[in-house]
Amino acid sequence: MQLLSNTHCFSGEQRFYQHDSKVIGLPMKFGIYLPPKALAGERCLVLIYLAGLTCNEETFPIKAHAQQIASDLGVILISPDTSPRGESVAVGDYWDIGQGAGFYLDATEQPWAPHYRMESYITSELYSLIQNSFAVQRIGLMGHSMGGHGALTLALRHPDLFRSVSAIAPIAAPIDCPWGIKAFSTYLGADQSTWIEHDATRLVQAKGKLFNNILIDQGLEDKFLNQLNPDLFEAACTHVGQPLQLRRHAHYDHGYYFIQSVMTDHVIFHVEAFV
Amino acid sequence: MQLLSNTHCFSGEQRFYQHDSKVIGLPMKFGIYLPPKALAGERCLVLIYLAGLTCNEETFPIKAHAQQIASDLGVILISPDTSPRGESVAVGDYWDIGQGAGFYLDATEQPWAPHYRMESYITSELYSLIQNSFAVQRIGLMGHSMGGHGALTLALRHPDLFRSVSAIAPIAAPIDCPWGIKAFSTYLGADQSTWIEHDATRLVQAKGKLFNNILIDQGLEDKFLNQLNPDLFEAACTHVGQPLQLRRHAHYDHGYYFIQSVMTDHVIFHVEAFV
Repeated sequence: MQLLSNTHCFSGEQRFYQHDSKVIGLPMKFGIYLPPKALAGERCLVLIYLAGLTCNEETFPIKAHAQQIASDLGVILISPDTSPRGESVAVGDYWDIGQGAGFYLDATEQPWAPHYRMESYITSELYSLIQNSFAVQRIGLMGHSMGGHGALTLALRHPDLFRSVSAIAPIAAPIDCPWGIKAFSTYLGADQSTWIEHDATRLVQAKGKLFNNILIDQGLEDKFLNQLNPDLFEAACTHVGQPLQLRRHAHYDHGYYFIQSVMTDHVIFHVEAFV
Repeated sequence: MQLLSNTHCFSGEQRFYQHDSKVIGLPMKFGIYLPPKALAGERCLVLIYLAGLTCNEETFPIKAHAQQIASDLGVILISPDTSPRGESVAVGDYWDIGQGAGFYLDATEQPWAPHYRMESYITSELYSLIQNSFAVQRIGLMGHSMGGHGALTLALRHPDLFRSVSAIAPIAAPIDCPWGIKAFSTYLGADQSTWIEHDATRLVQAKGKLFNNILIDQGLEDKFLNQLNPDLFEAACTHVGQPLQLRRHAHYDHGYYFIQSVMTDHVIFHVEAFV
């Protein structure tokens, strides 16, 4: 693990690391914010934030404004990249496939399968790296848009790993939207029986209640609302008795000005999930 | 004044406008955050933030994390661009001269004089535009690095316009540093008698006490500390009896992770300057 930069921020440290990922087969970068509590050696809640299409490990630290509340409450923030990167990595035909668009799953189709293994990377390699490198109390998961899909699906698929989950404007039923259909057919192939394992709405329908609560924030002026389908996820949660706090916000759109507006609530949600 | 975008943020609105500037002779853009208090029609404190080298009107709204406290306290935030822009505008040989590096003065040398008139733009045209377009209570000025130089010098030169002033890592004595010598000789020419009118340390020395207090934050791990010279400004303030709160912060550097860490204090400083 190579330290790329370390910058003081709200009495803590915003760091960026690079490490050679065996799962991905390439170097991967991630950001980590260590609050004063972590620097003092105390165990902290860790929140992994999965970012959306076109983003990278810097997007969340620069734009989401989470460090202040993380400093106050003693929360470690982790921001992974959204896909493998590099000249040897397949690129897509558009910004919604390929580099910057890993969709937090392990691709089975060519040419994606060799490096596009973001589910294993997050849940196994990065997860262990964090546990072994920092003083971790427990780990929660949150994300935005494609990363909201990642947060919901990885938490529902690995509830033993993630003790709390929240999302902002997630792609909540990818099988029912153009982004999801394109990503799943590209990365997983034509057999749709594999798709349902990566669709938050189908997963919660199949698995039932796994968490005491799930928090989702959705702006009602979000121009991608037809890609997100929070209503379908809500209906599935209601059907199986999975508690869900889905907050619909008038006026807000899909971007980081919305994310920063609800970020403090998300950090508090994860802290209070275990109080 | 053309509205380029309007995004909901902390129950207020982050907008970007473009207008045809007579002073600059070209279209200019600026950002404005309107807190809920402003949207409700009440008069608000306005803070103009002058950004540093290479920045533009988007840097502050994206990176400085000021909207939350501005929303809470009912403060309007204005973020102008840092120079004229466009194909007809002279460019420099490096990032510290030319586009993105206007230094908040009116250039007298060619080829800069036609468009590089940022002092008149900020203090006259933009100032009036804001007063005529929004419900303004009073206007304060803050800035970072080159923009900290701009905030200090414009406030000291126009204390009738700006009721409070603060800066983060400002170029506080430009005549004594490479950035300032290069900018002044390029924009103002070889006659150094004109330079002292744009050097915060010489200005406060000449003018004496103008403000009840000035707040400056400076990181001690700032790699540009040799360009900034807060000690010289502090000595001049002490000499003439201008109250100055110069806070030196261990560990912090020159970037926006530092700026966001002290931004709430700056907004509160300007609010309390008139309580």
